Amino acid sequence: MDEKKIEELVSKVVKGEIKFHEVEKYTDGDSEVATEVRRRALERLTGAKLEHLGKYTIDANRAMDKNIENMIGAVQVPVGIAGPLLVHGEYAEGEYYVPLATTEGALVASVNRGCSTITDSGGAHVRIVRDGMTRAPVFKLPSARKALEFCEWVRKHFDDIKEVAESTTRHGELLDIQEFVVGRHVFLRFEFDTKDAMGMNMVTIATEEAVNWIEEKYPDAKCVSASGNVCVDKKPSWLNNVLGRGRTVVAEVEVPRDIVEEKLKTTPEAMAEVNYRKNLVGSAAAGNIGFNAHHANIVAAIFIATGQDEAHAVDGSTGYTTMEVTEDGDLYASVTIPSLNVGTVGGGTGVETQRECLEILGVAGGGNPPGVNAKEFAEVVAAAVLAGELSLVAALAAGHLGKAHRLLGR
Amino acid sequence: MDEKKIEELVSKVVKGEIKFHEVEKYTDGDSEVATEVRRRALERLTGAKLEHLGKYTIDANRAMDKNIENMIGAVQVPVGIAGPLLVHGEYAEGEYYVPLATTEGALVASVNRGCSTITDSGGAHVRIVRDGMTRAPVFKLPSARKALEFCEWVRKHFDDIKEVAESTTRHGELLDIQEFVVGRHVFLRFEFDTKDAMGMNMVTIATEEAVNWIEEKYPDAKCVSASGNVCVDKKPSWLNNVLGRGRTVVAEVEVPRDIVEEKLKTTPEAMAEVNYRKNLVGSAAAGNIGFNAHHANIVAAIFIATGQDEAHAVDGSTGYTTMEVTEDGDLYASVTIPSLNVGTVGGGTGVETQRECLEILGVAGGGNPPGVNAKEFAEVVAAAVLAGELSLVAALAAGHLGKAHRLLGR
Amino acid sequence: MDEKKIEELVSKVVKGEIKFHEVEKYTDGDSEVATEVRRRALERLTGAKLEHLGKYTIDANRAMDKNIENMIGAVQVPVGIAGPLLVHGEYAEGEYYVPLATTEGALVASVNRGCSTITDSGGAHVRIVRDGMTRAPVFKLPSARKALEFCEWVRKHFDDIKEVAESTTRHGELLDIQEFVVGRHVFLRFEFDTKDAMGMNMVTIATEEAVNWIEEKYPDAKCVSASGNVCVDKKPSWLNNVLGRGRTVVAEVEVPRDIVEEKLKTTPEAMAEVNYRKNLVGSAAAGNIGFNAHHANIVAAIFIATGQDEAHAVDGSTGYTTMEVTEDGDLYASVTIPSLNVGTVGGGTGVETQRECLEILGVAGGGNPPGVNAKEFAEVVAAAVLAGELSLVAALAAGHLGKAHRLLGR
Amino acid sequence: MDEKKIEELVSKVVKGEIKFHEVEKYTDGDSEVATEVRRRALERLTGAKLEHLGKYTIDANRAMDKNIENMIGAVQVPVGIAGPLLVHGEYAEGEYYVPLATTEGALVASVNRGCSTITDSGGAHVRIVRDGMTRAPVFKLPSARKALEFCEWVRKHFDDIKEVAESTTRHGELLDIQEFVVGRHVFLRFEFDTKDAMGMNMVTIATEEAVNWIEEKYPDAKCVSASGNVCVDKKPSWLNNVLGRGRTVVAEVEVPRDIVEEKLKTTPEAMAEVNYRKNLVGSAAAGNIGFNAHHANIVAAIFIATGQDEAHAVDGSTGYTTMEVTEDGDLYASVTIPSLNVGTVGGGTGVETQRECLEILGVAGGGNPPGVNAKEFAEVVAAAVLAGELSLVAALAAGHLGKAHRLLGR
Repeated sequence: MDEKKIEELVSKVVKGEIKFHEVEKYTDGDSEVATEVRRRALERLTGAKLEHLGKYTIDANRAMDKNIENMIGAVQVPVGIAGPLLVHGEYAEGEYYVPLATTEGALVASVNRGCSTITDSGGAHVRIVRDGMTRAPVFKLPSARKALEFCEWVRKHFDDIKEVAESTTRHGELLDIQEFVVGRHVFLRFEFDTKDAMGMNMVTIATEEAVNWIEEKYPDAKCVSASGNVCVDKKPSWLNNVLGRGRTVVAEVEVPRDIVEEKLKTTPEAMAEVNYRKNLVGSAAAGNIGFNAHHANIVAAIFIATGQDEAHAVDGSTGYTTMEVTEDGDLYASVTIPSLNVGTVGGGTGVETQRECLEILGVAGGGNPPGVNAKEFAEVVAAAVLAGELSLVAALAAGHLGKAHRLLGR
Repeated sequence: MDEKKIEELVSKVVKGEIKFHEVEKYTDGDSEVATEVRRRALERLTGAKLEHLGKYTIDANRAMDKNIENMIGAVQVPVGIAGPLLVHGEYAEGEYYVPLATTEGALVASVNRGCSTITDSGGAHVRIVRDGMTRAPVFKLPSARKALEFCEWVRKHFDDIKEVAESTTRHGELLDIQEFVVGRHVFLRFEFDTKDAMGMNMVTIATEEAVNWIEEKYPDAKCVSASGNVCVDKKPSWLNNVLGRGRTVVAEVEVPRDIVEEKLKTTPEAMAEVNYRKNLVGSAAAGNIGFNAHHANIVAAIFIATGQDEAHAVDGSTGYTTMEVTEDGDLYASVTIPSLNVGTVGGGTGVETQRECLEILGVAGGGNPPGVNAKEFAEVVAAAVLAGELSLVAALAAGHLGKAHRLLGR
Repeated sequence: MDEKKIEELVSKVVKGEIKFHEVEKYTDGDSEVATEVRRRALERLTGAKLEHLGKYTIDANRAMDKNIENMIGAVQVPVGIAGPLLVHGEYAEGEYYVPLATTEGALVASVNRGCSTITDSGGAHVRIVRDGMTRAPVFKLPSARKALEFCEWVRKHFDDIKEVAESTTRHGELLDIQEFVVGRHVFLRFEFDTKDAMGMNMVTIATEEAVNWIEEKYPDAKCVSASGNVCVDKKPSWLNNVLGRGRTVVAEVEVPRDIVEEKLKTTPEAMAEVNYRKNLVGSAAAGNIGFNAHHANIVAAIFIATGQDEAHAVDGSTGYTTMEVTEDGDLYASVTIPSLNVGTVGGGTGVETQRECLEILGVAGGGNPPGVNAKEFAEVVAAAVLAGELSLVAALAAGHLGKAHRLLGR
Repeated sequence: MDEKKIEELVSKVVKGEIKFHEVEKYTDGDSEVATEVRRRALERLTGAKLEHLGKYTIDANRAMDKNIENMIGAVQVPVGIAGPLLVHGEYAEGEYYVPLATTEGALVASVNRGCSTITDSGGAHVRIVRDGMTRAPVFKLPSARKALEFCEWVRKHFDDIKEVAESTTRHGELLDIQEFVVGRHVFLRFEFDTKDAMGMNMVTIATEEAVNWIEEKYPDAKCVSASGNVCVDKKPSWLNNVLGRGRTVVAEVEVPRDIVEEKLKTTPEAMAEVNYRKNLVGSAAAGNIGFNAHHANIVAAIFIATGQDEAHAVDGSTGYTTMEVTEDGDLYASVTIPSLNVGTVGGGTGVETQRECLEILGVAGGGNPPGVNAKEFAEVVAAAVLAGELSLVAALAAGHLGKAHRLLGR
């Protein structure tokens, strides 16, 4: 499109004659041009000079199709690498390099130190405890006694509901429907195996199909909202901690005393004490969901790097860290993450830079059989979270937190 | 640096002779070259082709100084724009355009619809309820009775502690020290006015300085960890919801019935019912900290766009949304965010693309007087969260959630 | 025993030559005399005059056998009656009179008003949502991966474990074992049908038997504690709210507008508003487990009257109350109690006065078939809680709380 | 009143011509006779034989005036004695005998063992951390911004409000008003020093007086409910754990290793491990408010014995227990109870048997100066809770829980 035409469009957007989301109508659907039009218009509307936002190399048309609306460019988040991180999982095996996208100085260095500690100690052992993505619509029934009858009906018709729900998806499988009754509300928590996808969209669409079928067959049950906050998505939740959501993962390592002393500059005893007084007693004193030091930091940084839903850092923050001195005087450490929502297909995983980060981990795209890539990825994330916990707790035990920030973070 | 020398370095990194974090030693401290070396080495180590990660335009040397270690490039997160959003705050006044960095299709469109609803309704009113960033070291005392004596001592020496703490910072002011006693543990929650900074680093360093002074003057009090998880940082926490942390903000709007019907395709009654059955009863059923629909989505997307600490999406997820039908039949809606951790200086706010996003909002850099930019920013974020809530709750009320995902998200 | 011998014993107890719990050795096992000895000794030791404590009519020997140690007498808690309360349950049907043991003035009157409201409205409908008493020992495994193997082994050997556990009890049936893994901890939550017993003792003994068997067969699993706080007994718990414990019960009623106005002196709208702003928003603001007005009051008063474990008032406090205006302008109200721990045999149900209170309700002793009495009882308790909620919320809506206390409570 | 007249009344009550609460009108206000009338009527209505319920010795007229309505008699709860318990508090000093009213076999024996352990170890040290009873009405304002203005107005008029509130009470003093804002809701948490009273009624009446004054002076603030569930009364609450309510108390003891071994039949290490894996990790896994073994048991049993509000067992269940091995190999143990709601005047403290139990403790009635009795009582309760925790955790560590129940509880 020639400059003049672009300028005309910009001018119209500035005047409000064309709205941001209408620009593509005037660019033959070309989102790259439309993105430029919007960005230029925004510059005039706000007086901001948007030089770097426009210097993206990702495919704007693809992004506008899948990931974003009203695109004006891209923000560049620096990526650092931690590793090698030796992981022994059911799906992950070997040394991994972990990409972390963050602007918080000291984070990559800290995780890197943890990776090195783990690798030198023979690697982290990781297991997926359970796996299932959920969506929970809320139904209103005429009464609580009808609510219970409805639950029974749902149980009886599980196979029918499963067929309806799965008709909307190629890979997804309905595993379970959990019921929660409060007065005459019924929350049905649909749980799916979403294979390599994080699966929130898949699950939402499948559940809505099921809801439509249910409402047709059972008119007494009125779906008030396709999500009833019992899912629970992006709100920290005890229900998720108890029942799990997405991938529930546990990672552990035994770090020999000499490695603790040389690499982490502290002792197993001091680390166990920090974990006890801070991660357990402190979190208990404050009413935290999250008995850990900073799971969220590692989860968030990997999620941005790899095109995960960034708001799922919330769910990744509620886990547990334990640290204990073994009978041999070494350090046993574990992390348990009840709700790690990751995928290797869908969402932002197809954006060029994000896909490259998944490729660094060797888990880009769908696995064979479906699901193994996301599971491998989940295992590596958990090991990286363990690395982050080791390093930060050690820094606290050694009294080095502020110093690290002074040196690295400012 | 010439290609041959680069190749030599790459080769040594691949062989493990040079570690990732040591590369700068061989590039005269040039992080741009070092970043390339690491990226190339990583390609060989993993077999991944990292074409786009290297196509960044941000200043690698600045980033390595402030934001990242072991840099290998940058991930590009698409940015969409929502607005105009009319805001009436104490610091924010007028129409704002809100940059959202996300890969989750439908989010920008949804927030944009909410912005339009708010603006057409005369704007969102926003207020900062309180403001203070915290860090809470944990001390171990010989006994609980000594712990209480220690608390009294701290109260008596508040002015001294304040002087020590503030000696480390140009702008930060120590506002308060809150005490929490569990057995012989004492958690001292230092609360600072951090002006335009989010302030976590400032507060950590100032608190550590105070801790050193305290340990010297009061040898019975042994600081076990500079953070005792009562801060509470990046773990969802009832304590933060009760006491607030960072900026506590409330935003509200009254949407006339006809705008609800025309723009949101539903009714005030239906939205109030969704809010009641989902955001209140549903969250109560599931044990959520967070009685809202998706605060975290908006917070996370703005945070990535503007260089905030991305893991603080956790803290931004725990808020409250209310929706009620007014006596006149219109919709009253509010969001209350107990812990919104934002800044306009420090952290990732200086990265080129992120700074441009802050400039779109007109809040880049330090304010005059210090603090007004961050406050203005906090108010706009809260208004944008309100926009997001209006739009999603309306979509749920109208039964359109899955449809939106089908149309936009896949 | 003659007075002189009694005096000798009293004297020795006062001097510490005989300990409180040894007195029965010197009274031929007669606890009535021993109780007097202890009481008299205590009078001398403390100077208190214990006239009324000794005026009990319950069988001290039976009580010392089942309910108490070091008995010195009995406290008399006044019992008031509320009702008739019309209940339509699966097990309870008809009008009930509810005994409430309390010293808090206004409580019986308030519940009575609620009973009258319910009865006039055609009765409360009640259902038991689920039923199962639990105990959860905590095991330490060598590692998290071994912990998961252990879980699998437990699942495989469920039938064996069931046989072992049930060998200790006549009525109890093991229904399920739920697993929770944190690092290398495994919490196995054994769930039993305990029929007419509240069942905590039955379940503890059966679980310990199972634990012994497990430890023998699976030496890697070391039981650290027969209760691992995941049971969860007498600690308010989100896990119990999500999964239920004891009897989970829901009760509801539709109160016609004119009854609300005449009997409760307010309107359905005002009551729904109080429920919304207090029981939902207020509890959400404060981080309560318990979205109700005062479930605990009614539960505690019935529990003391009927010989339940009084500390289980804790578990009965965490429920939900909903109040809504129906389309016809009437009031719909419900209570949902996730963890109502009641029994009609065992514990204090055999003490004479307590048994009489159960007889007032027509549920004393074991049912035929076993379990129906406890279920009927649970349904009546839930209906009474509903009565209490209606009355207090109405009083708050009408602005009468303090007045009631002024008139009745002081 | 002669038998014939009594029978006539009974007959009328049975027929429904006289309601339960109207009987006193026909007995010249004599509640003792009226109690008999009601009891006999109830026997006929239900077929139950109520022999023991009528054998009370407390003053029915006094009870009907202060403690109960529709009285039909009294339930007798057996009381056992534990002690001596050596306490070193600020208000309590010396050996105490603790009355426990319960029907749960093994509880008194268990607490008694704990008392003995503490006393032999030199006593428990106890401190009151803070003291203040609260009531929190909820106000609805026209908007959130008005809500904040209202808060400021309240702060400015604190002295006026204090004067109004205190005009209703002889002893109570308004200490503080804490504000919590959610959207346009304002929760004002009034905190009072209630001296020797538990104070809930005093505080309710004083707060309502203040609310009336506020509504008159500030018409924009509409009090929706005199209690807004932010108080928080009888609902387990994180807010109470963070801010305290009633008396916040901490008790601690150091038990020499040999006493642990001889008296508790286990080791400091084993007890610390149970506390860690059960009270901390277990409670964290289950989402408990309450990181303890069984605080509620001891609180409930003392509360019933001494005429406290029995439903306040709920608030007494949310505390913390810590157990650690000291450098000398001994056991350090503490309990922290955030919300212990006790009084020595008012409520059930005047019932004859209950008053005797307070006299056993030497804390009956008002103290001189006012408040010291309740404080002394609170300290003893905390020490007794510590005794209960020591004993149960030791039993679990030694693997003796079920055995104790088998021996004592059935």
